[in-house]
Amino acid sequence: MNRRDVALASMGLATMAGISPAIATNVSEATDFRPFRSRSLDIGMLVFDRMDQIDFTGPFSVLSRLPDSNVQVIGLDARSIQDHKGLMLTPQTSLAAARTPDVLVVPGGPGQEALMSHRALLAAIASQVDAGRVLFSVCTGALLCGAAGVLHGRRATTHWASMEFLHYFGAKPVDRRVVIDGRIVSAAGITAGIDGALTLAALLRGDEAAQRIQLDIQYSPQPPFDSGQPATAPRDVLDAVRSSYRSISAARQETAMSYARQSLHRSLP
Amino acid sequence: MNRRDVALASMGLATMAGISPAIATNVSEATDFRPFRSRSLDIGMLVFDRMDQIDFTGPFSVLSRLPDSNVQVIGLDARSIQDHKGLMLTPQTSLAAARTPDVLVVPGGPGQEALMSHRALLAAIASQVDAGRVLFSVCTGALLCGAAGVLHGRRATTHWASMEFLHYFGAKPVDRRVVIDGRIVSAAGITAGIDGALTLAALLRGDEAAQRIQLDIQYSPQPPFDSGQPATAPRDVLDAVRSSYRSISAARQETAMSYARQSLHRSLP
Repeated sequence: MNRRDVALASMGLATMAGISPAIATNVSEATDFRPFRSRSLDIGMLVFDRMDQIDFTGPFSVLSRLPDSNVQVIGLDARSIQDHKGLMLTPQTSLAAARTPDVLVVPGGPGQEALMSHRALLAAIASQVDAGRVLFSVCTGALLCGAAGVLHGRRATTHWASMEFLHYFGAKPVDRRVVIDGRIVSAAGITAGIDGALTLAALLRGDEAAQRIQLDIQYSPQPPFDSGQPATAPRDVLDAVRSSYRSISAARQETAMSYARQSLHRSLP
Repeated sequence: MNRRDVALASMGLATMAGISPAIATNVSEATDFRPFRSRSLDIGMLVFDRMDQIDFTGPFSVLSRLPDSNVQVIGLDARSIQDHKGLMLTPQTSLAAARTPDVLVVPGGPGQEALMSHRALLAAIASQVDAGRVLFSVCTGALLCGAAGVLHGRRATTHWASMEFLHYFGAKPVDRRVVIDGRIVSAAGITAGIDGALTLAALLRGDEAAQRIQLDIQYSPQPPFDSGQPATAPRDVLDAVRSSYRSISAARQETAMSYARQSLHRSLP
């Protein structure tokens, strides 16, 4: 094993062990968002083929209700897309034509994997962070943020079945539903986007604005089962769902390792 | 006051008092759904202008994952629609061209009000129930079901700000997040559609299928505030949201009373 392989292997070993314990974040204490409180906000929300539509539509239901704000639905180009279950969504603008958003929302889903080398998208994500604007990833949208290079040294979360890949992007995986690190907010899998968007609403417009939205959308959830996370799902259910991810997880791992290899290559003398 | 006015007034007075206490429904005991368990299912999901997209996209995220099932997104015609916050959705078929679905999903939102006399839509809802198929309303989609005449004597729920109108349609309002009465399932406001769809998934495909979907979409919600229903929201928040509904609520009440008047007219000698 050469130095590069050892480093890569240790990253792999650290994968699950590297998941930090829950961190407490008092949203009212977050000062990073104060500059956004007092001005009109442009919120850009990405859509792309084979995404998971609810990663986007959940947060849309919250953020489209934010006072003094405007949502742009942004496609990689101006064409309509289909989510991985066949729902057609039509962007309002393209990545090239969109106004630079104060808040960029990056959803996930199986289609994220095909975009892990999409230069214009990764550049847009990177410049969002470089310029001190807000980035909000949902589900495996975090892997796109990782590929854009913005998660190095940052705490982040993603879908439970992809947590093990965050480490390859230099991120510190945190097993929480919503994670805030500076102006990067990440939500766990799929429906966690609603919790993340409400948290973001509070950061951007204050607790009362977020509470009004929560009441408006009657978000007092009562799942009929306690099966929404690996720790509580019945074992058979967990095994079945995990095995349904085998193929996409293998692809995601390969891409993540490839990123880590290139990242090491750049950092080694 | 003549007999008709007295009857109408008493319906009005009974409005809030008529909300039943919570009923316990053991989904595994529901036998009305047994005939649907063992065959392929067509699930039709309506979209219309000025609907609330999450009433539809929340359940879509669940029902599009149901084993041995197919979702059709159905418009009143084949044209794309815009939800009340500007999201464009494109149906896969029109009401006239759609296959008759085993399960019809009726979302709500401000645009419901313009459809309360839409003959083809109300006829489709009515024939769904008459033929013993499954009807699932989300939010103020319940008012459309009411206008179709299928809620007489039935327990149902809707958005908290519209509960007082159910009574005019002959329904028994139940202050629960999900209500099952025969093959009519209703969910409360907006995000309650996710809980309703998971409940429906269990009724149609068994508990384990629903639990797999719940784990897949990582639905272990953690709202950042406890403001998702009138009973728990801060008073100022409740007052502000309620007053934002004043105009649409007035229109809904007028339409509901008009339905009740016509209904009485038909039933009186």
